[in-house]
Amino acid sequence: MQFTLEKTDNQTSARAGEIITDHGKIPTPVFMPVGTVGSVKGIHVKDLEEEVKAHIILGNTYHLYLRPGLDVLKQAGGLHRFNGWNRPILTDSGGFQVFSLSDKRKLSHEGAEFRSHLDGSKHMFTPENVVDIQRVIGADIIMAFDECPPGDSDFKYAFQSMELTHKWLKRGIERFDSTDPVYDYSQTFFPIVQGGSFPELRRKSAEYIASFNREGNAIGGLAVGEPEEVMYEMVEVVNDILPEDKPRYLMGVGNPVNILEAISRGVDMFDCVMPTRNGRNGMLFTSRGIINIKNEKWKADFSPIDPDGHCSFDTLYSKSYLRHLFVSREMLGPQIASIHNLSFYLWLVTEARRQIQNDTFAAWKDGMVKQLARRL
Amino acid sequence: MQFTLEKTDNQTSARAGEIITDHGKIPTPVFMPVGTVGSVKGIHVKDLEEEVKAHIILGNTYHLYLRPGLDVLKQAGGLHRFNGWNRPILTDSGGFQVFSLSDKRKLSHEGAEFRSHLDGSKHMFTPENVVDIQRVIGADIIMAFDECPPGDSDFKYAFQSMELTHKWLKRGIERFDSTDPVYDYSQTFFPIVQGGSFPELRRKSAEYIASFNREGNAIGGLAVGEPEEVMYEMVEVVNDILPEDKPRYLMGVGNPVNILEAISRGVDMFDCVMPTRNGRNGMLFTSRGIINIKNEKWKADFSPIDPDGHCSFDTLYSKSYLRHLFVSREMLGPQIASIHNLSFYLWLVTEARRQIQNDTFAAWKDGMVKQLARRL
Repeated sequence: MQFTLEKTDNQTSARAGEIITDHGKIPTPVFMPVGTVGSVKGIHVKDLEEEVKAHIILGNTYHLYLRPGLDVLKQAGGLHRFNGWNRPILTDSGGFQVFSLSDKRKLSHEGAEFRSHLDGSKHMFTPENVVDIQRVIGADIIMAFDECPPGDSDFKYAFQSMELTHKWLKRGIERFDSTDPVYDYSQTFFPIVQGGSFPELRRKSAEYIASFNREGNAIGGLAVGEPEEVMYEMVEVVNDILPEDKPRYLMGVGNPVNILEAISRGVDMFDCVMPTRNGRNGMLFTSRGIINIKNEKWKADFSPIDPDGHCSFDTLYSKSYLRHLFVSREMLGPQIASIHNLSFYLWLVTEARRQIQNDTFAAWKDGMVKQLARRL
Repeated sequence: MQFTLEKTDNQTSARAGEIITDHGKIPTPVFMPVGTVGSVKGIHVKDLEEEVKAHIILGNTYHLYLRPGLDVLKQAGGLHRFNGWNRPILTDSGGFQVFSLSDKRKLSHEGAEFRSHLDGSKHMFTPENVVDIQRVIGADIIMAFDECPPGDSDFKYAFQSMELTHKWLKRGIERFDSTDPVYDYSQTFFPIVQGGSFPELRRKSAEYIASFNREGNAIGGLAVGEPEEVMYEMVEVVNDILPEDKPRYLMGVGNPVNILEAISRGVDMFDCVMPTRNGRNGMLFTSRGIINIKNEKWKADFSPIDPDGHCSFDTLYSKSYLRHLFVSREMLGPQIASIHNLSFYLWLVTEARRQIQNDTFAAWKDGMVKQLARRL
């Protein structure tokens, strides 16, 4: 993997760059749609390419490991071949899901023992086997195994958790560096900064992570219940330390405002289930504000879903029709809303990139942030 | 509307023709995907055009009347504008749903009083207002209001029901012929043959329907529980009488074998929820037989969904991946299966047309019928 930092904004810490992988280029800042079990929910691969214009998607190691499982993924020749997506894929480490989804997890220095939320079967994730699993999935970007403490963790817990994550990181890197890709393309490994809501821990963690000088670095354990201002502060603290010439990935964030605020603080990569999950529930993000399409007020509104929209559905269909689909519980409603939201997210980061390159990002961002949070 | 009978098969009664409407041409035999409330479930309009290659879709008057309702549809400029589908649309009369879905229906000579299955509200369908409603929906082809008796109805009931349907037909035609289209394109009106499973009633009904010399004629009240052989016999009896130079539409039929058997007996138009409904449940129709994609046997089968398939998904994805989507309850599974099944149905009628034009239909049909019913 290669990263080129093309431009840093003259008023903020926002950056424009480009990542090159064996599956293609990724302009940054970038948003990665979440493809939990291999599919971005409700979206055909060709629409992900042509309508959403996604450059890279994310897969969840925890889910893919349990289903379809490594045997199937290996026989398929990896996730790209399995799901028909030929552009880059990043996989998380499974840690977040082990702590949020599985039953009866038991944490030790060795790793995390857990029971599948599907059938109760017993499994163990370790910093080493999580690398092996992601090698088999065939991710272009592999994430370190980390513990993600809750947003309201106290100092002691956040500290111990960070220490554990650091020890796990060393073992993960050793495993990654001593193994080869399973398929015929290269893979890279990103470590993850932890440290809860404590600037001194975040600083310490960022320094430790930076010391490994990997091809990219991630910030984890944010957007997990802490106030937004704390999240932004942690991002600033960490990005002051993480190397400038490597991409920075803020995991699991966020709404459109969060993304612009994090871009202005030097973040390059994002993922979040919000555009698809909220889309399935009828919430549309637009550059003019948020629409609850199920609302009665759209019943006879025949204006386009989003006149400024960036996928073909935005102007093909009216708000009235999309509302009708939701009210009638037609699956096409969630499908259209998911594509709309993702295409909006991809537009947002692409436009941010353009503004950064033109040195107009700061003013543009301030205007957008006001609009994005409005309720239409 | 115009119909040109291009060719009649030399060994069977199968026909190839073409219908011309103000929304475009429809080669026959044709299959019409069902778009219940305006959307063909789970399928984007562009995929209906490009992947399924549908020429015409069907909308359900009962559903559209209740939701979004006539006010919205009229303001939208009709269903084509509302749902983004610019090719022809046929609407049923709502009769079938009144008798199968609604609560507390009360039949009289005047029409059918019923309560909405959605909110219990009281409504009345008459032969006249059902024409008015379909005018507002903006269907290219409008169906007469009929009573559809169950497949096991006795002679007396089938006779009385047929008489009622005939009286209603006269009133429907009077209303249609004395009113104009609501929008800027022409609409046509098809009467419906009834008569249960009794050849003498079917004959009588077909003669009555033929006497109106409308631009097309339909056969209703079949595939409602009677044995398949009875259905085929009724189709033969009726098609001996219905005019040759008008398209014949067999309502609500059926599986791929039913369709080929009916084509060979002179039917030109079909609709059925089977390809989408069964697709959503993981049943795939292919030219080699039927696949239950949820079956364990496909778990590690990386061959294409359908190597002979006619939509891009058939070869993009493996059976293993589609099974994974179904087992994981990902909505993309039903989406892909629905498109596959509809594209197969459209291929089947298109290929039947080609075989008819080449005078090779009979042998081809006999071979296909054997294959289609197999379980893979």
